[in-house]
Amino acid sequence: MRTLFTAEMSELADDLTTMARHVESAITRASEALLTQNVELAQQVIADDAKLDGLEETVDERCVLLIAQQQPVGLDLRSIVASLRISAALERMGDLAQHIAESARRAYPGSAIPAGHEEIFAGMAEAAKKAATEVIELLETRDLNVAAGIVSDDDALDQLHSLAYKTMLSDEYSGSTQETLDISLLARYFERFGDHAVGVSRRIVYLVTGDVTGERGRI
Amino acid sequence: MRTLFTAEMSELADDLTTMARHVESAITRASEALLTQNVELAQQVIADDAKLDGLEETVDERCVLLIAQQQPVGLDLRSIVASLRISAALERMGDLAQHIAESARRAYPGSAIPAGHEEIFAGMAEAAKKAATEVIELLETRDLNVAAGIVSDDDALDQLHSLAYKTMLSDEYSGSTQETLDISLLARYFERFGDHAVGVSRRIVYLVTGDVTGERGRI
Repeated sequence: MRTLFTAEMSELADDLTTMARHVESAITRASEALLTQNVELAQQVIADDAKLDGLEETVDERCVLLIAQQQPVGLDLRSIVASLRISAALERMGDLAQHIAESARRAYPGSAIPAGHEEIFAGMAEAAKKAATEVIELLETRDLNVAAGIVSDDDALDQLHSLAYKTMLSDEYSGSTQETLDISLLARYFERFGDHAVGVSRRIVYLVTGDVTGERGRI
Repeated sequence: MRTLFTAEMSELADDLTTMARHVESAITRASEALLTQNVELAQQVIADDAKLDGLEETVDERCVLLIAQQQPVGLDLRSIVASLRISAALERMGDLAQHIAESARRAYPGSAIPAGHEEIFAGMAEAAKKAATEVIELLETRDLNVAAGIVSDDDALDQLHSLAYKTMLSDEYSGSTQETLDISLLARYFERFGDHAVGVSRRIVYLVTGDVTGERGRI
């Protein structure tokens, strides 16, 4: 029974890693679509989001069956509940990548990024992609040093988010309403992406260490 | 054992209703703070959000203990997993109310709502409050007619969200960058609030009917 449980927990972990790989691919392609006005890439990201939704359903169903059939307690149970939370966060990260792709598609053949903001969004794309890559690494290795990297990516995203707004509100800024709308939402999408990456990271750290610090005591 | 389980499920339902009442109070006060430049009310909403976070932790912990101690299967188990999802959505609705309150506070003593957008945001506040009230009613009565009302509120929020953006992008619009930023984010906060209300509603409908239609097959 225990062997079966271990095998099923391992499959659950694999499913989460598959979701994380999907998220990394989505944010990488959405960012490139945004930065290079590549509408085909944007379309791909938008079309692919349904796959991530399907993966979330698979994880959720696996969690319910695992609980029902194996009646886990203690850390096993908490791992499964954490997996439910992680799958929801990864699904949401995919949605945010999709929103970024939608902005790129709407602006095509123009750019959704107004002049003067290219560097900020290139930086956000870089930090978001790095966070997504590290989420995969953390899921695979459970190496807690990786978690610190995700927090640092999120800090970078928060700073770039503030900088995007500050630049927009400076006297030099002369963007159109559409441009202001784009910056407002795009910066927020990237910033939320970082928040969710940190959420995923904290749940994994909790599973590895039992330490709920910074996790608001939540699973 | 079954009686104890029923009693504990009932307490779980009460916790969710308490969370929903908190959300209703938060969105009502945040909206009033926004529409009437009431900075004290905005401060209250911001300060009170920690209570909702605490309630979410209570619900989560109750769910884990219920599963561990009672080892539920079938619909009982699915109800508990759905409760985890509902608590997360309610917590997020509280965050969105808090963001609205923060916008009101930032703009004080001015208004975060630019001239010409008052009616749209009054409409959004109305629909969001109605959705929050109906979420409480649905949790308490499990009356499926209430669920239809929540979907209709969300439709209203989506339409007002589109209208806010359309008005902003019309030739007549002459708002400042700060005003454009405020409209962009505030309209999105209300729109997301409606999305989460529908999410909560669908999970309750699923619990009552076993029907996952519109629920993307998820718990």
